[in-house]
Amino acid sequence: MLIVMDQKANPQDIAAVIKAIEARGYTARPIPGGERVAIGILNNEGPVDAALFLALPGVKDAIPVTRAYKLVSREFKPEDTVIKVGDVCIGSGGLTIIAGPCAIESEAQALTIAGHVKRSGAQLFWGGAFKPRTSPYSFQGLGQEGLKILARVREKTGMPVVTEVMDFETFELVEQYADVIQIGTRNMQNFSLLKRAGRATKPILLKRGMAATIDEWLMAAEYILEGGNSNVILCERGVRTFVHHSRNTLDLSAVPVVRKESHLPIIVDPSHAAGRRDQVIPLSRASVAVGAHGLMVEVHHDPAKALSDGGQSLYPDQFEMMCRHVRSIYHILQNRKDDK
Amino acid sequence: MLIVMDQKANPQDIAAVIKAIEARGYTARPIPGGERVAIGILNNEGPVDAALFLALPGVKDAIPVTRAYKLVSREFKPEDTVIKVGDVCIGSGGLTIIAGPCAIESEAQALTIAGHVKRSGAQLFWGGAFKPRTSPYSFQGLGQEGLKILARVREKTGMPVVTEVMDFETFELVEQYADVIQIGTRNMQNFSLLKRAGRATKPILLKRGMAATIDEWLMAAEYILEGGNSNVILCERGVRTFVHHSRNTLDLSAVPVVRKESHLPIIVDPSHAAGRRDQVIPLSRASVAVGAHGLMVEVHHDPAKALSDGGQSLYPDQFEMMCRHVRSIYHILQNRKDDK
Amino acid sequence: MLIVMDQKANPQDIAAVIKAIEARGYTARPIPGGERVAIGILNNEGPVDAALFLALPGVKDAIPVTRAYKLVSREFKPEDTVIKVGDVCIGSGGLTIIAGPCAIESEAQALTIAGHVKRSGAQLFWGGAFKPRTSPYSFQGLGQEGLKILARVREKTGMPVVTEVMDFETFELVEQYADVIQIGTRNMQNFSLLKRAGRATKPILLKRGMAATIDEWLMAAEYILEGGNSNVILCERGVRTFVHHSRNTLDLSAVPVVRKESHLPIIVDPSHAAGRRDQVIPLSRASVAVGAHGLMVEVHHDPAKALSDGGQSLYPDQFEMMCRHVRSIYHILQNRKDDK
Amino acid sequence: MLIVMDQKANPQDIAAVIKAIEARGYTARPIPGGERVAIGILNNEGPVDAALFLALPGVKDAIPVTRAYKLVSREFKPEDTVIKVGDVCIGSGGLTIIAGPCAIESEAQALTIAGHVKRSGAQLFWGGAFKPRTSPYSFQGLGQEGLKILARVREKTGMPVVTEVMDFETFELVEQYADVIQIGTRNMQNFSLLKRAGRATKPILLKRGMAATIDEWLMAAEYILEGGNSNVILCERGVRTFVHHSRNTLDLSAVPVVRKESHLPIIVDPSHAAGRRDQVIPLSRASVAVGAHGLMVEVHHDPAKALSDGGQSLYPDQFEMMCRHVRSIYHILQNRKDDK
Repeated sequence: MLIVMDQKANPQDIAAVIKAIEARGYTARPIPGGERVAIGILNNEGPVDAALFLALPGVKDAIPVTRAYKLVSREFKPEDTVIKVGDVCIGSGGLTIIAGPCAIESEAQALTIAGHVKRSGAQLFWGGAFKPRTSPYSFQGLGQEGLKILARVREKTGMPVVTEVMDFETFELVEQYADVIQIGTRNMQNFSLLKRAGRATKPILLKRGMAATIDEWLMAAEYILEGGNSNVILCERGVRTFVHHSRNTLDLSAVPVVRKESHLPIIVDPSHAAGRRDQVIPLSRASVAVGAHGLMVEVHHDPAKALSDGGQSLYPDQFEMMCRHVRSIYHILQNRKDDK
Repeated sequence: MLIVMDQKANPQDIAAVIKAIEARGYTARPIPGGERVAIGILNNEGPVDAALFLALPGVKDAIPVTRAYKLVSREFKPEDTVIKVGDVCIGSGGLTIIAGPCAIESEAQALTIAGHVKRSGAQLFWGGAFKPRTSPYSFQGLGQEGLKILARVREKTGMPVVTEVMDFETFELVEQYADVIQIGTRNMQNFSLLKRAGRATKPILLKRGMAATIDEWLMAAEYILEGGNSNVILCERGVRTFVHHSRNTLDLSAVPVVRKESHLPIIVDPSHAAGRRDQVIPLSRASVAVGAHGLMVEVHHDPAKALSDGGQSLYPDQFEMMCRHVRSIYHILQNRKDDK
Repeated sequence: MLIVMDQKANPQDIAAVIKAIEARGYTARPIPGGERVAIGILNNEGPVDAALFLALPGVKDAIPVTRAYKLVSREFKPEDTVIKVGDVCIGSGGLTIIAGPCAIESEAQALTIAGHVKRSGAQLFWGGAFKPRTSPYSFQGLGQEGLKILARVREKTGMPVVTEVMDFETFELVEQYADVIQIGTRNMQNFSLLKRAGRATKPILLKRGMAATIDEWLMAAEYILEGGNSNVILCERGVRTFVHHSRNTLDLSAVPVVRKESHLPIIVDPSHAAGRRDQVIPLSRASVAVGAHGLMVEVHHDPAKALSDGGQSLYPDQFEMMCRHVRSIYHILQNRKDDK
Repeated sequence: MLIVMDQKANPQDIAAVIKAIEARGYTARPIPGGERVAIGILNNEGPVDAALFLALPGVKDAIPVTRAYKLVSREFKPEDTVIKVGDVCIGSGGLTIIAGPCAIESEAQALTIAGHVKRSGAQLFWGGAFKPRTSPYSFQGLGQEGLKILARVREKTGMPVVTEVMDFETFELVEQYADVIQIGTRNMQNFSLLKRAGRATKPILLKRGMAATIDEWLMAAEYILEGGNSNVILCERGVRTFVHHSRNTLDLSAVPVVRKESHLPIIVDPSHAAGRRDQVIPLSRASVAVGAHGLMVEVHHDPAKALSDGGQSLYPDQFEMMCRHVRSIYHILQNRKDDK
C-alpha cells in the first residue's frame, strides 16, 4: 500500500502515519517527491485496510499496490497448469468443450443430449442435478437421482461429467459422482464451500461471481489451492452491468488478464452471459478467438420443453455448427504462434 | 410476460407463438395494436423464461410483467411487519440502531464497545464471530468462542445480539446464541442457507447482494418466508458500480421502493457501503432521512488495532453524536405524518 | 504514478523502465521493497499514461497516485467558494433550493409555477428552454421564446433564473437571459462547451455525467476555471448502474467526497435521479442530510399535461412540504457544528 | 407501454388510468388477466413517460413495449446498409479495417504510420486532429494543421481518412477534409452536433456512449438519419462497468443485437476498450469472430513518444499480424454461411 500525503501535510502528520503503520507491525518507507510525500507500506502479510490510514490528518489517499493471492499467481508458478480429467486435458494446448442441458430431467433426456454433443465433439458432459434458482417456486433439480443419471451417461458414452455442488451437506455425494465439480456464480464467495472444495479429490470449476473483480475471483481460487486442491478451472460467465440486451455482459478481456496473472486454465460460458440462444453462437466464437482454453455451452434437443433455461440452449445442429467454427478459429490461433 | 411481435410478423408466426405458450401450460391472450400484435401470457406459476419465445420467428421482444414473489409482497400482506426481539420492535413506528465491532476480538473488547454503544442509545449489539473474508489469509473470526462472548455481552448489558451465519454446518450453533441471525451479502443467493434460515426460530437479517436487484433480494427473502420463518429484516448495504470513491454505492432509493413493494422492515448499513469512516456519519443521516427503519453501524474504541475493517469503524464519541443527529432527523419524519 | 515490478524482474528490466520514464521527461525514483521493486514517477505535468509502462518486460502494474486537477482542489484553495447570484449565496452557510418545470411551456405555466415555488421558499427558478432529448421526435423546448419567458418570471417574481445551454451557437443568447447557466449531464465532457463556459460572465451549474467518476467531473470543472470563470456549482444527479428501480442511482457519498476534495459548492438533483415522483421527496431529505449545499427539484402544477418529464415533477403542495422538511433537517446539521 | 394494475386495484382506479391515457391523446386497451388487469397504451407518437402513470392509485408498474426509433430499424428497412467511401464498402460483405495514430503529430509521423498500415491491409486511415481530453492540460491536437496533414496522407496513399469532429464551430472545416467524420463517445448525446451531422455530406462514424444503452445509441443515430444523412456507421468501444482491469468493458453482444435490430453497419474499436496494448489483439480477434463489419485500431511506430494514448497503440508489426489473423477468422465466418 502507498499512502499519499496532502501537499500541506506537516512533519507531525507524516510522523503520525509512520507510527500508525508500525503499530500494525508493518514497515514504513517515506518517499519524498516534488510536490508531496508518499509513504510505502512493506512487509505486510495479507491485505492492508486502506481506511485505517485515510482518516489520519494530512492523508490524501491510500492506494493498494500488491495483490494478496499467492498460490494462484504466475509469479508463484510460471508454467501453465493443465488439468487431466479422464483422457481430457484442460488448459494450454487444446480446446475443451463442455456441453449438456441446464438441468437433468430424465435418463432419456440426458442420454439423447449426450449422444448429440459427443458426436459433435464435446469432450465433457454437463448436467445440473442440484439447481440454484432465484425463485423457490422454480424447478430445483432432480438431486441424487440426477447424479445417478450422470453416472449412467458417463458409463454409456465414456464422457467425464461436470455438475454443480450447492452446499457442504451434499458435497460428498456430488464428489462421488462428478468428474469435475462446479461452484456456481452465486457461491463464488461462499467461503465455507470453497474450503470444502480445497479438500476435494476432484477438480473444481469455479465460475466468476456476477460482480466479482478478477482479484476477488483469484482470491476465491486461492482458498481452494490453499486448502490443498490445485486443480481449479476458472470460468468467465458474464458480469452484471447497466446493459440489459443480454442477461449479463461477457467480459472477454478477463481471459487475457487471467492468463497473464495466473497459471490456471480459463474457459468461458457464453450461454449464461447471453441468456438467449441467438447470442450464444457469436459469443462462443469470440470466446475462443480471445484465447479461452474451452467453452461450456448449454444444449437441449427440445428446448421448448426444458425445465430450466430452455431459451438459452442451443439445438443439437446449432451446437454441431458451433463446434466446427470454434475449432477452425482455435486452429488459426494455434498457428499464430509461428508468427512470434 | 408480454410477447411483442414484429410489425411484419405474419399470422403463422402469431399462431406459432400462441402454440408455444400453450405447450408450456400457460394461457395466451393476443392483443392487436395499431402497428403490431402483442401476446400476453397468463396463468403461469413462477417466472417465465423470456428466451423461450425470443427465438421464435416474428418475435421482437419478451417483457416480464409480474413479479414472482408472493409472501413478501405488500399485495399479499398490506400491513407493515414489525419484528420483536426482546423488548425491541424493528419496523414501522421506531428507529432501531444496531452497533458493535466488525469482529469480536475478546470479551474485554466486546464489553467495552457494548458499554459505549448502549450508553449512546443502540438497542442491539452487533459482533462478528464467523467472518467471511475475501482472503484465506485474513483473520476469520473467533468462531464459537466469539458466540460465547456475545452471550456474555447480552447477559451483562441486556442488549439482544446480532451475528452472522456463514453455513449450514454452524447454523444450529449460531441459532443457539444469536437473537438475530445475519445472512451476509455474499450469501444472499446461497439457497441452501436460505432454506435453512426458513426453518430457524430466530429472525433473519438479510443483507442485499452486492449486485442484486430488488426483485432478486425479495426472492431471497421469499425463500425464508416460504420455509416458515416470516421474521425477515432487509438490510441495504451498497451495490457495486463503476464508482470507486466509496467501497460500494449506497442505493438509498431502495428504501422507498422496498417499503412500497414489501411489508418487511428495511434498515441500512452505511459502514460497509462507505468502507471509510468519514463517509459513515453523513450516509447514516441520509439513510434515516430517506425513511429506513434502522441503522447498522460498526463501532470500535481502538480502530487502529481492530482485526477487521477498523478503518470504517466509528469512534464511540462519533457514534454518540451520530445517534443524536439521526434521532433528530427521525423525529422530523415522524412529525411529517401530520402533514398529510 | 507508481510502477510496480514483478517479483522476478531483473536489473535490466528495472533499468529499462527508468529509461522509459526519463525518455518522457519525468523523474524516476526506485523504491526497493521486501519482495519486489516499485518505481515512482515524479515531476510529470498532467496525467501519465499507464499503458506506456504496462507493456514493458517485468512490469506488473502501473498505479496513478496524484490527480491532475489543480484549480478546483482544496489543496489549491482551502476555503469554501460561495457564489452570489442576486441576493442568494450558494455554498457553505445556507441551503439553496432551485425549482421549476422541466420545460417552459408558456408564460402562464411558468408564472403559475414560479408563484408556487417562491411561496414555498425556492430562491432560484429553474426552467428549460433548450431541451436535450433522447428522441428527435420529442418536444425540444421553446428556445429563445422560453428564455424571454424566464426573463419575465425574474422581472415579476424577483427570483434569479437557471436554464440549460446545449451548444456554442446559442451560448451567448442563453448568457444574456440566464442568471445561472446549466451544462447538462450529457454535455459534461463536451469540452468545446466547457471552454466557452470558462469565458462566460455568469456562474455555471455543472451536472455530473451519467458515468463520470468524481475525478472526471472535477476535471470538467477545471476546464471552466482554467478558462477564467471560477463560479462553478457542481450538481450530483445520479449515475448509471445495473439498478433499474430508479432512473439512475443517486450517489450521495459523492457529496462528502467532493466537499473534502474541492472548494466548490455541490447541490443535488433528486428528480432526474429518481425519474418518478414518489422517490423525489425521500431522496431530497437524504440529499440535505448528507450535506449538500442545495437542491434542484422539478415542480409542475399540472404534471399530467407537462410536455416533458411530468411524471417526476412534484405537485406544488408536495414541494411545499418537502421544503419544510429539508429546512428542518438542514437546521439540525447546522446545530451539529456545536458538537465538535 | 403496458400499465400493470395492482391485484387490489378497483374499477375506479382502472377507469382513472384509462382517462389519464386518453387525456394525453393515446388509446387505452384494458387486458383482463387471471390475477390482475393490465392496460395497453396504443397510438402514441414518440416515447411515453412511465412516471406519469406510476403515481396513479392502483398502478403497480409501467413497462415500455415498443422502441421510439424508426429510420434506423430493420423493421423500417430490412436490407443491410452498405456505405461506400472511395472504393471501400463498409457493411455486409467485407471486413473494413481503419487504423492510424490516436493523434496526428506531424506529417512525417502520419505518413510513416499510414505507410505501415496500408501495407498490412488497412483500408481507411484514422488520425485525430481535434482531441477531446479529460484534462485541459493534455495535448489537444493540431487542429486545422492536423486536417491538412490528413489530406496529404490521402493524396499520397490513396486511403480515405477518418477524423473526429468535436463541435459545431469546426464541423464545416472537418467536413471539408474528412472522408468519414467521427462523433466520439463523449458527444454521443450532444444533440446539436447530431443535428449538424444530419446535414453533413459525409458518412458519420458514431461511437457508442460510455454508458449508453443500445436504444439510446440507435436514437442518437436516428437524429442523424432524421436530419437527412443516412450514412451512419456504428462503433462499439466499450462501456463503463465496475471492472477495472481494462479501461472499459467491451460489450461484444452489442454486435449481434445491433445487427438484428438495425440495418446500419457496426464496427468495433478494441483500442479504447482495452486501454492497454496487450489486450488489443485478443479483443480484435474476438470482435471479428462475433460478427463485426470492421475494426478501428490505434497504431503508432514509436508509441513511447506518442503525444496521446501511446500505451494502447499497436506496433506496426503487431498490427500486421493482427490483420492476418482477423482476416483468417473473417474468412471462416464467410464460409459459415454455407452451413445454413
